[in-house]
Order: sequence, then C-alpha cells, then structure tokens
Amino acid sequence: MKEKGGSGKGDGEGVTLEDLKKKMADFARERDWDKFHSPRNLLLALVGEVGELSEIFQWKGEVPKGLPGWEEKEKEHLGEELSDVLLYLVRLSDICGVDLGEAVLRKVELNACKYPVHQCRSSTTTATTATSMKNSNHYSNGSSTSEGASNGFQ
Amino acid sequence: MKEKGGSGKGDGEGVTLEDLKKKMADFARERDWDKFHSPRNLLLALVGEVGELSEIFQWKGEVPKGLPGWEEKEKEHLGEELSDVLLYLVRLSDICGVDLGEAVLRKVELNACKYPVHQCRSSTTTATTATSMKNSNHYSNGSSTSEGASNGFQ
Amino acid sequence: MKEKGGSGKGDGEGVTLEDLKKKMADFARERDWDKFHSPRNLLLALVGEVGELSEIFQWKGEVPKGLPGWEEKEKEHLGEELSDVLLYLVRLSDICGVDLGEAVLRKVELNACKYPVHQCRSSTTTATTATSMKNSNHYSNGSSTSEGASNGFQ
Amino acid sequence: MKEKGGSGKGDGEGVTLEDLKKKMADFARERDWDKFHSPRNLLLALVGEVGELSEIFQWKGEVPKGLPGWEEKEKEHLGEELSDVLLYLVRLSDICGVDLGEAVLRKVELNACKYPVHQCRSSTTTATTATSMKNSNHYSNGSSTSEGASNGFQ
Repeated sequence: MKEKGGSGKGDGEGVTLEDLKKKMADFARERDWDKFHSPRNLLLALVGEVGELSEIFQWKGEVPKGLPGWEEKEKEHLGEELSDVLLYLVRLSDICGVDLGEAVLRKVELNACKYPVHQCRSSTTTATTATSMKNSNHYSNGSSTSEGASNGFQ
Repeated sequence: MKEKGGSGKGDGEGVTLEDLKKKMADFARERDWDKFHSPRNLLLALVGEVGELSEIFQWKGEVPKGLPGWEEKEKEHLGEELSDVLLYLVRLSDICGVDLGEAVLRKVELNACKYPVHQCRSSTTTATTATSMKNSNHYSNGSSTSEGASNGFQ
Repeated sequence: MKEKGGSGKGDGEGVTLEDLKKKMADFARERDWDKFHSPRNLLLALVGEVGELSEIFQWKGEVPKGLPGWEEKEKEHLGEELSDVLLYLVRLSDICGVDLGEAVLRKVELNACKYPVHQCRSSTTTATTATSMKNSNHYSNGSSTSEGASNGFQ
Repeated sequence: MKEKGGSGKGDGEGVTLEDLKKKMADFARERDWDKFHSPRNLLLALVGEVGELSEIFQWKGEVPKGLPGWEEKEKEHLGEELSDVLLYLVRLSDICGVDLGEAVLRKVELNACKYPVHQCRSSTTTATTATSMKNSNHYSNGSSTSEGASNGFQ
C-alpha cells in the first residue's frame, strides 16, 4: 500500500494531488459515501476539521517554528488534522470539478505577479501598497498597520 | 515556470505536495516574508481563506456536484480560493516541521482501518457505530441522526 | 415581554451582552484563566467552536428552517455549540476592549444605510449593485451570480 | 458613556439577544431576504465573517489585551467584524428555532459544573484532568501539554 509507483521518492515526498484525489474517490465509492459528498457537505466538513486544527493551537500563545518542545504524540495529532483538512479540500475540489493541481499552479503564478519580489522586499509600506487592490474592502486594514496588512498569498 | 521536469504529465496532474512546499518556501524567502510565517499567523491566514471559500457558497442553497450553471469566472474564483487554502496548509505544515505527504498517506491508512468497507456499506447504523469512538464527545450526534453522523475521514 | 427589570433571570429573553461579558470575566477570574485569555487564543478557541457547530450540519444536506425532525438531544447540542461561539465572541470582544453592544448597534445602522430597503426589494440585480462596493475584491462574484452575491449583513 | 440608566437603551450596554433577534428578523423581512436565510446559508455566512475576523489578526503575532497601539480605524473595523459574527449567530439561532438567550445561560451553568473553581485553580494538571472527558477524542491533547489542554468553556 506504500508503493507509489515510478518516481516515488521517500515516503510522502512524491505524493501528488492527483494521487490523493483518486484515493478519496475510491474510498468514498467503496463505502457508498458518494451520496454524502455534496459540495456544501464537504465544505462544512472542511470547516469542522479547520476547527479541530485550531483547537491544537488555541491555548498555546505564540508557537515558534518547528514546534520545539511539543511531544511526539501531539505532533502526530497535528499531522492528522492537517491531513484531514487536505483530504476534504482535495475531495471538495474534485466534487466541484476543479482541477486543484492546475488551479494551484496558476494561483502561484498570479501571486508572483501580484507581489513582485522587489516591491515586497523594499519596505513594508511598499508591500502594503502593492496589495491595496486586494484589500480595498478592508478599509481600515490596507494602509496603516505597521506590520503590513498582507504578507501572504491571497 | 510551467515545466515540472521529467514526469510532468498534463498540467496540474503531477503536482506534488513537495513541489508546493518548495514553491512556497522560495516565495516567502524572496520576499523576506519568513518573519511573518509563524505557525499561528499561518493558521489564522488559513482560516481567513476558508472564510473566503465559504463566501462563495454562502447564499446558494444546496449546490449539485460539478457546479452546473456556474459561470466560468465564478469557477475560476473558486479554484483560487481552494488554492489559497491549500497553499497556506502546505506552508503551515512546513513551518511546523510536519511532512504533510507522509502524514496524509498515514491518515488515509488510518481511515481505512477506522471505517472498514463492509461495515460502512452494510447500513448507516453500522457505519455510525463504527465511528462511535471518534464521536464519543458528540453525545447527541453519534447515534441517532438518520443520515449518519460520520461519513467522512475524521 | 421586554421587561428585564430587576433580576432579569427567568428566561433567556432579557439576557444582555453586558450580562454575558460579566459572567465570562467572573468565570475566568475565579479559575485563574485570565492568563490564557489573550486575543488570539480566544480567537482560535472561537474558530474551534465554529468547527464544532459546522460538524452538526455537515452531513445533512439542506436543512429547513426550524429543524423539523431533529431530535431534542440534537437541538440541545446545537444550542450548546451556538452558545460556545457566543461566549468566546463576547469574551474576545471584552479582552480586545471592544464594546460589543455598542459596536453591534452601530453595525446594524451601517447595514441599514448600505442596503436600503427599496433597493434590496426591487430586484436581485439592484441589490447586487448596491453591494458592489463591498464585494469589489470578489471580482467574479459581484456582478453575475443569479442568486445575488450579497443577501446579508456584511 | 457607561450609564445605561432607565431604559437600558442609549448605549450598547443594555442590548439583549432578543433585541438583536428582532432587528435581524425585521431587517430580513423588509428586504425580502428571508428566502436566503436558511440554516446552512447562514452558517456559511458566519464562517465567512469569522474568516474576516481572523484576517485582522493574521499577520500580527501575539497581540496583548486591550490592543495597545492599534489605530482607532482598525479597532472600529474589528468591532464591525465581531458584530457581523454576532448578527449571523443570532440570526442562525433564530432560524433554527433555538432560544439563544436561554441556551447560553444553560451553557454557562453547565460550564460551572464541568469546571469547578477549586479544581481549576489548584493546578493546570488538575484542570486538565477535570476536562479529560471532553477531550477524550483528542488523545494527544488531553494529558500532556504544559499549558493545559482546556482553559475555556467548551
């Protein structure tokens, strides 16, 4: 069950979105669960999993990168909740007829256009300006926060 | 920017989680955004994107599979929001030191053990029973809903 | 039916946001939990509760108003999850120094200005137009969906 | 600004959940929006607003109580997003036929039973033990985190 054929590198390294899509489709079909997997059912299931993911972090205050000091069991739990979100996301995309692999590559390119490297590096203010279009409805957010309103891929 | 080297199948078909992880890491480094990418910052950004995803579906009532009748622009928008969730999920995993590809394969196997095919197919009641451990804290949820409390990968 | 007079106990009808704020503050102080109640901790706890709320609805498909056919225990569970969201929301507001009662009255007035009755009633198209400013970043959403992009208080 | 005097109007201090419920019902009726306000539509709208709330906090790192240093406009924006969550929560409860005021008072009492003062104060470990039932499905969460798995009203 571990062989991913051809290119499979280590364990999870070669896992493609397409692999996951197929696994999820098989899983649902075998269990006769297709009837439950409507777009909004899956979306709410995704929200539920995001809630469980948040619960892991909720009472911790700020958490450093790499999660130093976390026990192995807790990290394992985290991996499971991250996976649940991923699995529902892949399934939701499939059921909606969205090619997630294609969409995500396109989005990465869009992000690269939207946040050009030199503008983002020059200063926080410039970075903020670069994102003002996106944040135009967040009137109180776009222009003034010292930490920058947008430092991500939105 | 489209070449995915060797095995690249169509467009998005061969996209691996590892590819996305690297793209995100490069993207952040080039823009000097690593300082913003702490686990809880990324988690909240993920929640924000899930909110945007939900907004697409919020006034639609039930939506059939394949989204018949949706305009191309709307589907494109959906693809972008699904992608945003995915990108933050991949980035959050990386920053937490979780190998998402490995974790998700493991979770799929756990799900297969937790929801054996024959139990899930036999009846909704049986399926519910099979998941009762998981739902033990949802006291009012586990036993009685006619549509089954759990038809997913939780 | 409006009199909340003296004790305002009895039913839930006279419950004010201020009452809840005080109950939550007392509760936390008595248990020495103030140290855990930072804004982002509470926000993530709120997200966790919204996840639990979503889980109640996730496999149900469309649900009619009034929840006909739901068992009493399930409705009770729903009331608890709705309450959890409310309690964290009230607590988060308090910890952020936001007067939620004042803010919500102001927001209701803003909504009334933003969505004037005659515009909203005349047609979906007009309603959509009325909300186009708000949705300016949802490019694929604002102008074309037949069901209207915005039928709520945003 | 704090006096709520006789009628409890004026400011936000006397705002009851019942007041908000009625405002929302009137608002929807006047705009002919009842048809859009199904339980799951409102739930997804709530999730959307929680996403907007999260966006305010997403790039900020840890935020101290009282939000020192935040600009007035940003706090105002925060108040609006908190209000949006509240309004959809109140509306969702109403449409589901749940008396939110009654439910929340009951939940506060349940919390008081579940987390007795002396147990919660004595030590974090004890507090965690007290909540172990609730967290029984969060196997890696309940017993070992140094900051306590549960310091809230769940």
